[in-house]
Amino acid sequence: MPSETVNYEADGLAMKGQLFRPAGAAGPRPGVLVFPEAFGLGEHALSKAERVAGLGYVALACDLHGNALQVTDMEKMMGLLGPVASSPAKTRARAKGAFDALTAQPGVDAAKIAAIGYCFGGTMSLELGCSGAGLAGIAGFHSGLASVTAADAGNIKGRVLLCLGADDPGITPEHRAAFEAALKAGGVSWDLHLYGKVVHSFTNPKADALGRPDFARYDPHADAESFEAMRRLFEEVLDKAG
Amino acid sequence: MPSETVNYEADGLAMKGQLFRPAGAAGPRPGVLVFPEAFGLGEHALSKAERVAGLGYVALACDLHGNALQVTDMEKMMGLLGPVASSPAKTRARAKGAFDALTAQPGVDAAKIAAIGYCFGGTMSLELGCSGAGLAGIAGFHSGLASVTAADAGNIKGRVLLCLGADDPGITPEHRAAFEAALKAGGVSWDLHLYGKVVHSFTNPKADALGRPDFARYDPHADAESFEAMRRLFEEVLDKAG
Repeated sequence: MPSETVNYEADGLAMKGQLFRPAGAAGPRPGVLVFPEAFGLGEHALSKAERVAGLGYVALACDLHGNALQVTDMEKMMGLLGPVASSPAKTRARAKGAFDALTAQPGVDAAKIAAIGYCFGGTMSLELGCSGAGLAGIAGFHSGLASVTAADAGNIKGRVLLCLGADDPGITPEHRAAFEAALKAGGVSWDLHLYGKVVHSFTNPKADALGRPDFARYDPHADAESFEAMRRLFEEVLDKAG
Repeated sequence: MPSETVNYEADGLAMKGQLFRPAGAAGPRPGVLVFPEAFGLGEHALSKAERVAGLGYVALACDLHGNALQVTDMEKMMGLLGPVASSPAKTRARAKGAFDALTAQPGVDAAKIAAIGYCFGGTMSLELGCSGAGLAGIAGFHSGLASVTAADAGNIKGRVLLCLGADDPGITPEHRAAFEAALKAGGVSWDLHLYGKVVHSFTNPKADALGRPDFARYDPHADAESFEAMRRLFEEVLDKAG
């Protein structure tokens, strides 16, 4: 599927996203922001955005580090991510730039936008929702939860879906419990799908290349189920009339 | 959809189940046991069994109290349920009778059986799995979890799906944590779907008639999502080749 490069500014960085349009759309279509894993915009998020466009939505695969920078080295990634992940304001700014870029595109129904993301990209989706952005739905896949407070959650406007590996070492039962409590206190409608025997990065077929199977491992069942759950969320919040 | 009464014996009781067959099946089809809520076999489980047959499976809506007895009074129900719920052996015996009855039916592929259940019926499905019965899949909807131990879980042969209201007063986060730990220790493959703002009996359109909305309440979203998750479980474990 062909894509268009979309240049936008976010958090002071020059961002390069990739926009995928559904075939044969007549009139504006709902839009979906696809935020990548912490390593930056690459094959994984691009392939998911392409599949989202295949469902009939305009999908923007979003940049994270600027200039579509990708890193493979874990330490370099942590060095880049640290200042962003530790600052909800920076995280939200990077997400908001993508939101503004997508809603400004021709052929996008700006009143029907969802955000999804993987790993830190899921956190970006949640933080964007917590900033009060007009998101009809948010889906996070193996995404960090720790930063969501009850006050923040109260700003979330749409439905939230979280898909997590039960054995993800980075997302503990305590994180989940705090997240549930925050969403409940914030009055958010949410679903949490938890997969047994599954760890981090279960949506990424290349996860095994990291060589840390106790931390990151592809899981075909969890990948398929979580994608389908997201598709149904979109049906519910993006396709309904009005 | 027409159904056939199936008489069987379980735990010393004369049971009356209702069997629903898919239309136009050529050759044996996988079978699904449908265990009712604690009030006994009635409209709710019958309607779910009919929908399961509509998916292409032979569905047995199972008896719980014998002679298809239904109760509406909460105290009377608790009196009937107590001796069963407090005895895994009795719970398993009532479920096993249904399993034997279904697998003995003509037109049923006895190697491909799933069990689902609502409330205490979900517990029956899990207990049947814990007894080592040949179940390819188990789905529990707002079902009690407290009785599953790690040793028991080790006997479960198929994939488990649990669909729970996050605010169900009878199924606490502690119950869920213990359940997760037991399934993990038992090496079971499982998914847990948790619905925010949802309490007990969310699959039952008549739940609101109980007049206890903080305890039992129908939820169209959770009902639809959990049915769909079950359908996909069946596709995965009942429809695959071999």
